[in-house]
Amino acid sequence: MKIENNIVKDSYPSSEKVYVNGNLHPIRVGMRKINLTDTVRIIDGKRIVTHNAPVYVYDTSGAFTDPDVEVNIEKGLQRIREQWILQRGDVEQIPDITSEYGQARRNDKTLDSIRFKNTHKPYRAKEGRAITQMYYARQGIITAEMEYVAIRENMMNEQQGIASHITPEFVRSEIAAGRAIIPANINHPEAEPMIIGRNFLVKLNTNIGNSALSSGIAEEVEKAVWSCHWGGDTLMDLSTGNHIHETREWIIRNSPVPVGTVPIYQALEKVNGKVEQLTWEVYRDTLIEQCEQGVDYFTIHAGVLRAHANLVGERLTGIVSRGGSIMTKWCVIHNQESFLYTHFDEICEILSQYDVAVSLGDGMRPGSIHDANDRAQFLELDVLGKLTQKAWAHNVQVIIEGPGHVPLHKIDENMQRQLSTCHEAPFYTLGPLTTDIAPGYDHITSAIGAARIAWLGTAMICYVTPKEHLGLPNREDVRAGVIAYKIAAHAADIAKGHPGAQLRDDAMSKARYEFRWKDQFNLSLDPERALEYYKLGGEYDGNYCTMCGPNFCAMRLSQDIVKDCDKKNQ
Amino acid sequence: MKIENNIVKDSYPSSEKVYVNGNLHPIRVGMRKINLTDTVRIIDGKRIVTHNAPVYVYDTSGAFTDPDVEVNIEKGLQRIREQWILQRGDVEQIPDITSEYGQARRNDKTLDSIRFKNTHKPYRAKEGRAITQMYYARQGIITAEMEYVAIRENMMNEQQGIASHITPEFVRSEIAAGRAIIPANINHPEAEPMIIGRNFLVKLNTNIGNSALSSGIAEEVEKAVWSCHWGGDTLMDLSTGNHIHETREWIIRNSPVPVGTVPIYQALEKVNGKVEQLTWEVYRDTLIEQCEQGVDYFTIHAGVLRAHANLVGERLTGIVSRGGSIMTKWCVIHNQESFLYTHFDEICEILSQYDVAVSLGDGMRPGSIHDANDRAQFLELDVLGKLTQKAWAHNVQVIIEGPGHVPLHKIDENMQRQLSTCHEAPFYTLGPLTTDIAPGYDHITSAIGAARIAWLGTAMICYVTPKEHLGLPNREDVRAGVIAYKIAAHAADIAKGHPGAQLRDDAMSKARYEFRWKDQFNLSLDPERALEYYKLGGEYDGNYCTMCGPNFCAMRLSQDIVKDCDKKNQ
Repeated sequence: MKIENNIVKDSYPSSEKVYVNGNLHPIRVGMRKINLTDTVRIIDGKRIVTHNAPVYVYDTSGAFTDPDVEVNIEKGLQRIREQWILQRGDVEQIPDITSEYGQARRNDKTLDSIRFKNTHKPYRAKEGRAITQMYYARQGIITAEMEYVAIRENMMNEQQGIASHITPEFVRSEIAAGRAIIPANINHPEAEPMIIGRNFLVKLNTNIGNSALSSGIAEEVEKAVWSCHWGGDTLMDLSTGNHIHETREWIIRNSPVPVGTVPIYQALEKVNGKVEQLTWEVYRDTLIEQCEQGVDYFTIHAGVLRAHANLVGERLTGIVSRGGSIMTKWCVIHNQESFLYTHFDEICEILSQYDVAVSLGDGMRPGSIHDANDRAQFLELDVLGKLTQKAWAHNVQVIIEGPGHVPLHKIDENMQRQLSTCHEAPFYTLGPLTTDIAPGYDHITSAIGAARIAWLGTAMICYVTPKEHLGLPNREDVRAGVIAYKIAAHAADIAKGHPGAQLRDDAMSKARYEFRWKDQFNLSLDPERALEYYKLGGEYDGNYCTMCGPNFCAMRLSQDIVKDCDKKNQ
Repeated sequence: MKIENNIVKDSYPSSEKVYVNGNLHPIRVGMRKINLTDTVRIIDGKRIVTHNAPVYVYDTSGAFTDPDVEVNIEKGLQRIREQWILQRGDVEQIPDITSEYGQARRNDKTLDSIRFKNTHKPYRAKEGRAITQMYYARQGIITAEMEYVAIRENMMNEQQGIASHITPEFVRSEIAAGRAIIPANINHPEAEPMIIGRNFLVKLNTNIGNSALSSGIAEEVEKAVWSCHWGGDTLMDLSTGNHIHETREWIIRNSPVPVGTVPIYQALEKVNGKVEQLTWEVYRDTLIEQCEQGVDYFTIHAGVLRAHANLVGERLTGIVSRGGSIMTKWCVIHNQESFLYTHFDEICEILSQYDVAVSLGDGMRPGSIHDANDRAQFLELDVLGKLTQKAWAHNVQVIIEGPGHVPLHKIDENMQRQLSTCHEAPFYTLGPLTTDIAPGYDHITSAIGAARIAWLGTAMICYVTPKEHLGLPNREDVRAGVIAYKIAAHAADIAKGHPGAQLRDDAMSKARYEFRWKDQFNLSLDPERALEYYKLGGEYDGNYCTMCGPNFCAMRLSQDIVKDCDKKNQ
């Protein structure tokens, strides 16, 4: 199979890839530098030129936007973290994959044509060694990953000379306290470290993945790279169709951001979609298979209890979490507690050997305004709080998933309860959607809720695309979803008073006021789209635009006013 | 000129236009009835059919969606309010238009080809009579307009049997207190009455209009009707190019919603764009011209003072209000107070003769995150508070315009100050945009802010389209802007606890849970778009969609769970 790297066009003109070196570790942190043009003013007939400092922005696109790196999708990305991991001396490369299913897929010749070939043998913790970022943090160790994210998060402050609390030591202390995580499976050394926690920049996750009815591997890989390109911080592969294993391999090997999955989806495929046939053994092997491939975090719906099944009938829209509905059905059929709950300690033991984080799934998230903040939802949240402490006992990093559909006035309660019930583990919500009546526009209904809940402290927001409730997103839907969520995350960063967050807004507004059109486009979240719209009105570089025309440009008049006032005040 | 009524396609399938009669007045209030299909369940082999009640929704589209009315754009809409107005016996038809400019345009033969021909002679208050809705309300009179909006606002409660506070008497009392307005120029009898106030449904305004660089009359009329069709509650014609007078006539005669303008734009055109040549006389004639045409509310930037001009230089983006920058420049050039401020009483006298409402413009609204909530903005707000009381002394209805660009954490202060400073006159804001960095997506950056401020009590939100900052919106941009703002307004209505607001959400979610796909589309804000996206995944009516495929449909699994639980609990 041939997959072209045709993702990166000239999406970010006037931008350069730059790297900042670490002080504690031999690391290079990539960021994007947006070069601006000069401000030129004519004052009393003299041409006054002022330099505008470049703006450095957080960059999730990885090597795909580095002209010095030739990315070959068939080889996968450079394994930047491999040496950091090996130097810690606490992991070993195992001679072969241990997942039975993984072995079977590997040995199946019929899959050769769609297989990613440049694989490596997996790493695992040495017997008796703890290797998670949480473990290191608790030991007082600042890892390369921690320094990496400190540089990344602090970049906007640095350029303004703002002294920030975000130091490598602060990163360590937040991870030690469970208030933040760095999802970083040792088998995904291609990923650039990033941090999820409410004292850092708000992050956004994108969901991709095929279903039984659509979309092939090439398309999913393209969506993955595309999602990172526009600003996705993490990526969940929610594939439920054919070739889940092979699709995921291609995605992980080419993903510069952490990759998450919901392992129960694949476990269910392995038993041909028959929920009653799911077993702990099938699930366990699936976890190991995915740990060895390099998945960075698993959504696990371990808070779904048998007793909660009776609450489903009270709801307008039942259970809308796929994992939640699968596990609830399993509990009812077998009339026993879910194996995710009963085996949770064993799950954590497995995850800890690869430093896979757990994202405790909200199987009972409300799927409608009507069901928001109901009993089923909050009873599950209580269980997630208890599981958080269990995971932490194994040094496993934890985030907590949240809803869903919630009207604006009920969002605050979600955040407050999550903080207190789940001991400040980072909250990771899907939207929430603030109304049910706008299918086709749910990136907007949910960006409104996401901005609110992120402002209140949610650490990561999971995007929703315009196709939500209607079908699988395509490339353009991914772009629309990512940009809507970049907006929500950034609006929240500003509202939270994140130091330096407003720098880019100020640079944009200054460019706007000075009619530096190109700078305005280049500073945008989506320069291509801004330029495209501008050109529709006729392309030129005048001191006004088609919106107001020459006589009605308020900004031009403002400049006249300032000049006039200056003269009169002299 | 021939303008086709090609606006209305089958955008709202399964919908009917229905009318509810008044009790106090001979009025018919149009609304849209969405018919739903039955719920069919198979229980123990038996087919159980349950009826789903139709959902009645607020309808801004006027006669354009009534199959019994043939709309002829060249004739204009039916003058539904004319008899109500005449029966009050306090207005008279004047023999000719009195605006000099209006007369000149009328007599200019070269304009015949673009002129709307089916004009009527204008009405005006009889000498010494007060005719505004505010005047009537203060006298304890419940007008036909007041009963009309009470029926319109209360419709969602009625169908749920919710006893609501929204009665004709409540409408009257809110208008008398200045907390709500019904913009209803006696010369725009085609408009269906609507109310703007924070104890009613949140409304949205759309801006259309050409600039010197673009777009003709036919296109603007089409955008106007299109805007009402998707849900715009009011419409501002912000034209600044050629033929402002003629364009407006076409728009008003075909607009089922109130029309607003910013008269200073046209006044400036009359002096060839030369700010220094603006005079009270030119402005006054423009007011009369537009009062006689039927404009329902005027944005008047009378709060811009000479003293505030010196604050412009402190800002990152100066003045971004066109009207604000024009008037500030005028003040500076002439070094005197603005004629809008000095002649404000005379302005109110004119407006009161036609019941034109005043929308006190925020000439100093911030145009960037940086400038939000600054001195210039709040000093002007104080002036607007004083002007509100002046207008009320003339029985002129008032709304107050607000920003602009405001980060999430600074929105609350805007609402609080507006309420206290402006004596609870309705607030009408443009967005606000919560970040500056997303040109091309400002319908989203601003829908986030609009939902927040509307939740806090803003009565009407002015839409922003994806083209904001880049160019004039086209038809599809108008649709995108309106839907984004319908979402924000509805999210706020739910959050405010508006009785009945959640009815449509619940009907939608029930349809979703029961796989009644067509009902789901028909209940959407934009059924066409929802259906279009759904079809991309392959059209069928199964018990699942392309998003999850058959084995992973949480809602189908939920239904199994409920059945299983019911059996086990028996």
